[in-house]
Amino acid sequence: MNKLINELVNVAQSEQRLKLYSPTKMPEAGSFLWNKHMMVQFNCRGYAVGQFMQPEPSKYAYAPNLEAKTFMQPEHAYYANHPGRFFYVKDEDSGKVFSAPYEPTKASLDYFCFSPGQNNISWQIEALKILVNITVSLSDSDAIEMWELKVTNLDNKPRNISIYPYFTIGYMSWMNQSADFIPELNAIVATCISPYQKVEEYFERANLKDKTYFLADTVPTSWCCNQKVFEGNNDISSPDGIHEATLEQINSLYEVPAAVMQYQQCFQAKQSKSYRFLFGPARDNQQIAEIKQKYFANAAGFEQEKSSYQHYIKQSSGPINIESGDDVFDQFVNHWLPRQVFYHGDVNRLTTDPQTRNYLQDNLGMSYIAPKKARQAFITALSQQDSNGEMPDGILIHPDASLKYINQVPHTDHCVWLPICLQAYLNETNDIALLDELIAFSDTSNKQTVKQHIELALDWLIGARDERGLSYIAQGDWCDPMNMVGYKGKGVSTWLTLASAYAINIWLEICDSYNITVNSKYRSFAEHLNHAVNKHCWDEQWYSRGITDDNVSFGVANDDEGRIFLNPQSWAILSGAASPEQQRKLLAQIELQLETPYGTMMLAPSYTKMREDVGRVTQKFPGTAENGSIYNHAAIFYAFSLFKIGKGEKAFEVMRKMLPDDDFIKRGQLPNFIPNYYRGAYYQHPRTAGRSSQLFNTGTVSWFYRCVIEGIAGLTGDKGELVINPQLPKQWSNLTVAREFNGATFNVEICKTKKVTQQKILLDGNEEDSDRITNIIAGKHYQVEVLLPALPELIIIMGVSGCGKSTVAKQLSQQFNYQYIEADDFHSKESIDMMAKGIPLTDKERAPWIAAICTQLNSAMAEQQDCVLAYSGLRAEHRDKFRQLGFNLCFVYLQVEQKELESRLALRTSHFFDAKLLASQFSALQLPEDESDVYLVDANQPQSNVLKQIIAHHKKEGQ
Amino acid sequence: MNKLINELVNVAQSEQRLKLYSPTKMPEAGSFLWNKHMMVQFNCRGYAVGQFMQPEPSKYAYAPNLEAKTFMQPEHAYYANHPGRFFYVKDEDSGKVFSAPYEPTKASLDYFCFSPGQNNISWQIEALKILVNITVSLSDSDAIEMWELKVTNLDNKPRNISIYPYFTIGYMSWMNQSADFIPELNAIVATCISPYQKVEEYFERANLKDKTYFLADTVPTSWCCNQKVFEGNNDISSPDGIHEATLEQINSLYEVPAAVMQYQQCFQAKQSKSYRFLFGPARDNQQIAEIKQKYFANAAGFEQEKSSYQHYIKQSSGPINIESGDDVFDQFVNHWLPRQVFYHGDVNRLTTDPQTRNYLQDNLGMSYIAPKKARQAFITALSQQDSNGEMPDGILIHPDASLKYINQVPHTDHCVWLPICLQAYLNETNDIALLDELIAFSDTSNKQTVKQHIELALDWLIGARDERGLSYIAQGDWCDPMNMVGYKGKGVSTWLTLASAYAINIWLEICDSYNITVNSKYRSFAEHLNHAVNKHCWDEQWYSRGITDDNVSFGVANDDEGRIFLNPQSWAILSGAASPEQQRKLLAQIELQLETPYGTMMLAPSYTKMREDVGRVTQKFPGTAENGSIYNHAAIFYAFSLFKIGKGEKAFEVMRKMLPDDDFIKRGQLPNFIPNYYRGAYYQHPRTAGRSSQLFNTGTVSWFYRCVIEGIAGLTGDKGELVINPQLPKQWSNLTVAREFNGATFNVEICKTKKVTQQKILLDGNEEDSDRITNIIAGKHYQVEVLLPALPELIIIMGVSGCGKSTVAKQLSQQFNYQYIEADDFHSKESIDMMAKGIPLTDKERAPWIAAICTQLNSAMAEQQDCVLAYSGLRAEHRDKFRQLGFNLCFVYLQVEQKELESRLALRTSHFFDAKLLASQFSALQLPEDESDVYLVDANQPQSNVLKQIIAHHKKEGQ
Repeated sequence: MNKLINELVNVAQSEQRLKLYSPTKMPEAGSFLWNKHMMVQFNCRGYAVGQFMQPEPSKYAYAPNLEAKTFMQPEHAYYANHPGRFFYVKDEDSGKVFSAPYEPTKASLDYFCFSPGQNNISWQIEALKILVNITVSLSDSDAIEMWELKVTNLDNKPRNISIYPYFTIGYMSWMNQSADFIPELNAIVATCISPYQKVEEYFERANLKDKTYFLADTVPTSWCCNQKVFEGNNDISSPDGIHEATLEQINSLYEVPAAVMQYQQCFQAKQSKSYRFLFGPARDNQQIAEIKQKYFANAAGFEQEKSSYQHYIKQSSGPINIESGDDVFDQFVNHWLPRQVFYHGDVNRLTTDPQTRNYLQDNLGMSYIAPKKARQAFITALSQQDSNGEMPDGILIHPDASLKYINQVPHTDHCVWLPICLQAYLNETNDIALLDELIAFSDTSNKQTVKQHIELALDWLIGARDERGLSYIAQGDWCDPMNMVGYKGKGVSTWLTLASAYAINIWLEICDSYNITVNSKYRSFAEHLNHAVNKHCWDEQWYSRGITDDNVSFGVANDDEGRIFLNPQSWAILSGAASPEQQRKLLAQIELQLETPYGTMMLAPSYTKMREDVGRVTQKFPGTAENGSIYNHAAIFYAFSLFKIGKGEKAFEVMRKMLPDDDFIKRGQLPNFIPNYYRGAYYQHPRTAGRSSQLFNTGTVSWFYRCVIEGIAGLTGDKGELVINPQLPKQWSNLTVAREFNGATFNVEICKTKKVTQQKILLDGNEEDSDRITNIIAGKHYQVEVLLPALPELIIIMGVSGCGKSTVAKQLSQQFNYQYIEADDFHSKESIDMMAKGIPLTDKERAPWIAAICTQLNSAMAEQQDCVLAYSGLRAEHRDKFRQLGFNLCFVYLQVEQKELESRLALRTSHFFDAKLLASQFSALQLPEDESDVYLVDANQPQSNVLKQIIAHHKKEGQ
Repeated sequence: MNKLINELVNVAQSEQRLKLYSPTKMPEAGSFLWNKHMMVQFNCRGYAVGQFMQPEPSKYAYAPNLEAKTFMQPEHAYYANHPGRFFYVKDEDSGKVFSAPYEPTKASLDYFCFSPGQNNISWQIEALKILVNITVSLSDSDAIEMWELKVTNLDNKPRNISIYPYFTIGYMSWMNQSADFIPELNAIVATCISPYQKVEEYFERANLKDKTYFLADTVPTSWCCNQKVFEGNNDISSPDGIHEATLEQINSLYEVPAAVMQYQQCFQAKQSKSYRFLFGPARDNQQIAEIKQKYFANAAGFEQEKSSYQHYIKQSSGPINIESGDDVFDQFVNHWLPRQVFYHGDVNRLTTDPQTRNYLQDNLGMSYIAPKKARQAFITALSQQDSNGEMPDGILIHPDASLKYINQVPHTDHCVWLPICLQAYLNETNDIALLDELIAFSDTSNKQTVKQHIELALDWLIGARDERGLSYIAQGDWCDPMNMVGYKGKGVSTWLTLASAYAINIWLEICDSYNITVNSKYRSFAEHLNHAVNKHCWDEQWYSRGITDDNVSFGVANDDEGRIFLNPQSWAILSGAASPEQQRKLLAQIELQLETPYGTMMLAPSYTKMREDVGRVTQKFPGTAENGSIYNHAAIFYAFSLFKIGKGEKAFEVMRKMLPDDDFIKRGQLPNFIPNYYRGAYYQHPRTAGRSSQLFNTGTVSWFYRCVIEGIAGLTGDKGELVINPQLPKQWSNLTVAREFNGATFNVEICKTKKVTQQKILLDGNEEDSDRITNIIAGKHYQVEVLLPALPELIIIMGVSGCGKSTVAKQLSQQFNYQYIEADDFHSKESIDMMAKGIPLTDKERAPWIAAICTQLNSAMAEQQDCVLAYSGLRAEHRDKFRQLGFNLCFVYLQVEQKELESRLALRTSHFFDAKLLASQFSALQLPEDESDVYLVDANQPQSNVLKQIIAHHKKEGQ
């Protein structure tokens, strides 16, 4: 399904917005806004979790208890009094109350729309004949939430209405917390002292913004700063405060503060009133006064800040725009994806010590959007390299930063990302001068060139291997919590060995491409590494994940849990370790063991108990995060590797599953970002499989963008030239791409056609000899047409006897002018006899039959002949055989109830099939489960309807 | 007021229980239970916060988000889903629901009683004609909550009732959390992995009890383990789950777990059903199975555990029992106080590294209750002393313990507590052999005697002083957060210098008492210290708190904030630094600046902003904790010092204010423990002053117990003999004490009588020569009568002219046979003339008048003559003059409305007072505010009633 359009969710392409029409169906859905100073995740129901930097991430709206300081958590919970921004609305005449957006009264609404946009989020709510419009935006320059509230009396008579913005502030500190209304500021100001105990911490905290203010443009009727007093003996869902005529104007004295104001006003019929509020952290009242002046001194101030924020977000626009007809995908790629890439790269996930691998990969993404920033980031990272070549676990990007959390655990993969990420940067920018930049090290001020830095990194990788030639894993590689494979100093990582080989190969590619002299040792080393992996880590059908300190291979067929890991397979393709035969085998195993309707799991089965020679990953909940979720970062590596071997259709499938489709209720997320994971453990915990982590920090997005540009659109830069090699998904017959490159604009029309048997390029109407556009002139617009050979198509109409498959297949073959093939024609004489006698066929008898059909289809394939096959399709195994023939294939499964069939077969005279065999067919039938290329049609209905439905589907799928 | 008996609170002496009849009037009220493994604070409404040791404090019921690991916080907040133990009750026939005890439905109840006892807590709730009895107890041997629930259908017809225990479990861990119902265990078991990131942490956590179980004795009708599913689109106050016929039996898969069971049953008319539940942490299901076997295999198991816990708590009974007639005070001293003392000493506040000063003082208290444990604790502490004499900041009492939180900040007072606490131990036990025990040090295995250890500690104290002879404070003394007075190495502490002098004096007292040879240098040092303090720290009216690194005295008259601190004043009395004149001055200033109706503040005015040369204490919220709260630990030092100088009546006042009185609603706490503080900043934040911190960890209780034993009852041990020197409060004329000492029992009757002019002791009927009972024979019962001289009494009947004071005074004097004094008789001729002319007196004219009355009263005092004085009493200043005369004094203020008075005065003929002066009297009248010795009587009523009321009050106050 290409569009999430139904009563719940709507993708409004023109406004670059999404719309969600229910506050309860996807209760966790939300969106995030950020600027250089802060980040806020707004939930559709009114909850919000925000952080700002000073320099470490801090809160200005807290939970109701003392929270642990921690990194951003997936699937975080919301609950009563969890930081929220609520607006109670009371009809003073009737006393009735509701709240906007939805929490905390949860009163039923007449209309609800949550609409995340690129640079703001808005809600529209209607209840009690009152319309409430809410918009929140950020400022470009301050850590501040900018709220606009518009209330409209939809009634035809005047009404008295009270509106109560209620911004929870929460438990700020055990040392000191209080709040009061400051009339000069027209603000509620809550004050705390961030708790500490040591003298040195006092000085570190001297400039903390320990105040939280709620500043209004309009003087309130009344106010309250005290959560307990406001909520009274009731709770947040129906606080005592709103049932009184006015709020008790009471401060908070070492009591949990809150910001509540009341606006009681008479609304004329159809009258609207607007209010503006600011919410954020400040050091002192002087700062709040300055904010008041800047935003509220006149109307232009607020608008100016909104527009400068809009301008900031516009910087996230990228070099590609696509039109595929899949609205959700197009909108994501054109708007939400570069925005998410830019979020990562521009604010470094709001940390001061991003993990080195994250920092480098995030800047891989920035190479497309803000290449100058990417360049600077590479230099910053390399300046923190040790002169022995080793990269640190995290890159310190603030003078007061230190390595925290996971960055205190030694990981061994950081070096590999240097050449890999650099390649994307060079492809896009052709900035080869970067390689000659002189940069110092963390431990010496002696400078060396970027080229030398990278070779030191490669040398470090080459050195950090055991006698088998495999890379030590220490306390983790890309997989952070795989911390006990090698903590004793012996364990090795298959993946890291492969990644090292890939990194070396990439470095050789770069050097060769630019004719840079490179030490020939690297050529042999890549091979050595791949060889070592093939010798020690190939486990018959796929690659192991590593070998432990105690010399035990894991991620192998012998393992009950963690039997297969995705990363070693993808990277064996990338590194060249996997032969075509190995590729075939491992891809089949990925499909078999790791693929799910929600994407590709990172490992399977998920660990359910601690494995002490693998480590912490095995203690994570099965199907979450690194323990076998659909971890999108690993999945996108897989897609990237598929593009490398020309399996673009499969790659697209993997990518497309990273966005909610018609399963969005189960995912619980809107298609406005890719989360770091969807729940996996598909076979272990089907109830929760597919659920979004809601966490938008992920290395996935840079690679996703790269896969769109270099893979799907196939418009890759190389030394300032554009190489064209698109790989369209099966269901797209056309793709329109606008690509900015090297200062020029390329309007590319890609289309599949049977008119060509290999890719053909027309540049401004002229056929090109190569796949490369050279001599690109900046400022110029190029018109590019790319013709791709369409694969011959195979439509298989399947179902038990009597379902009507032959009739339907025949009609389709006529309609489409496809070759009609009747599977029954390929039965042996013996089989026909058996069936006529009412003896069911076994799989043994079916095997030669299938083989015969395949021979026929192979001939058709050789002639580029499209086909329609009528075939019972009982066995899943046989369906897989047809899939391997190379056709653009689609199954249509005609479902008929057994009763209906019995009556149909009773009427049939001309067919060898004994109606009594029907029961045996039903029992042999392996219903297609999770086979995405099988289209189910209810064939109890008249055949003309069945045919119509199939043709419509065929059209939609672009076949 | 002596009893908290009204519709809300009742002290049921016989059952050693309290009863609270409202769930809303004191919403924070609660009680705590503990054993060696755990501690739980139960709130009257159903919330509970529990911790258990493994070995560090851990949770088994969590908040809804990731909590910070922190020490126990004062005034902690409860909120929806904050860990609670709730029981929903649904009438299946009507669908109506309430919850017991009160949260979370907050439905109105027909009856509510919360009753904390010594070894369990119970509730009785009635609503919808259903009676719910709940009792929670602990086990002696396991970390386990034992719940008993009894439900009774009070109706005369059968009813279908569903009961749903809902024990919140909360957000356990971001690594792994889940829950399921295990039929074999008949338990909901929630499982998590405590989050960590480093390999070494894994091994430290190998045996953590990461499971939380809710185990039932009865198979439920249905169950649910998933908070979100149970609460649904509603919230905890009306969860979807209880509105369905049965619960959705669903597990929790990396979702917030919860424990809910449903018991749906038909209750016959008047029928009761009982259920038992266990709630606690476990390592694995095997442990839970063992628990099930132990508690539920048969009914006796559960009862056995309850009774062994009862036995455990009985160990907290102490060596004294009093009967004063003040029920609240008696019950507290006899039951709750030793229980709280035992809690501190036996489980060390459930930490593994108690602060050294806490550890020693807690064992001062244990000297009375479990002296063997106290002995071992002194030895443990001394074994961690450095051989240079310095005591560490915390004492490690578990092999895996380390110094945490505040124990990482250097404090300089730990040595002073050694002799001070030891003295109490020796007084009680006469165990002088302890001084000869050989003990090693933290840095050497060479052993020295306890005596040598103590002298090393004193030497360290003597050495850690500046050139003025004042003690360095480093980053804090007794006052932890006073961390910036001396962090540069120069600042000194007045208090610590005095405490050192006191410690040395105590050591000399001990040695002298036992004829132990002691280096004579100590005698001069105590004097040196006191001298240095008098030279550098006396600020005309009181002592400073210290001198900063920059040589600035603070806690002095020049300071706007933190002008006076309580501790230096009390300890100058204890150390002997303060001369009688200085004592008089500083006591007056304490009364003036620090006393409040809720107790004595630790400093005043509270700091409202950071003072960088004082430190973190100034950043705490004004009136909380060390920043000017009524910090009971400091207040009890003050009381202790008052006993030392014979001001027992005042000392009792200070102590009595540590327990809620008729101000219990404002305090928000029941009289079942002394909290570490009540809110102070009485003049700065009157709204919150008096509010309890609800935190029962406090060094106060040991000293409070000592003050009861040695101060009020005056039954102090000394070398195995009992010294008798009671100091009864003004309002007690009698006190009955049972005192265990040296194996003997002393039944002591103390009474005040005018028959004696000095203390007289009758031992088994025979008058004793001294105040000392010698040759005590263990096992013997002694009958002791102590006669104390009663002070002559002065009743002052006050009120404006015409209120009837002269008549009432005359009648009282006749009734009691007291001397009647008419203030008007002492006016000068000039004043009488002025008044007759209608010219109001000024304070200037009143001064000689008061002086003349005082002269008369002084004569009466000399003759031990009781008096009644009729006197207008307009000026507060004059009332204070009478208070200083030394009488047992009471004011009776006759309040009459001005109108009534005017009519009375109009009828009067024989009096020189011009009725027109009445208005001037009303304007001169300074209404008695916060003068606890003023008794208000409504004198608009007939005089006979007025008289009756005064006599009744007189009787009640024991005068």
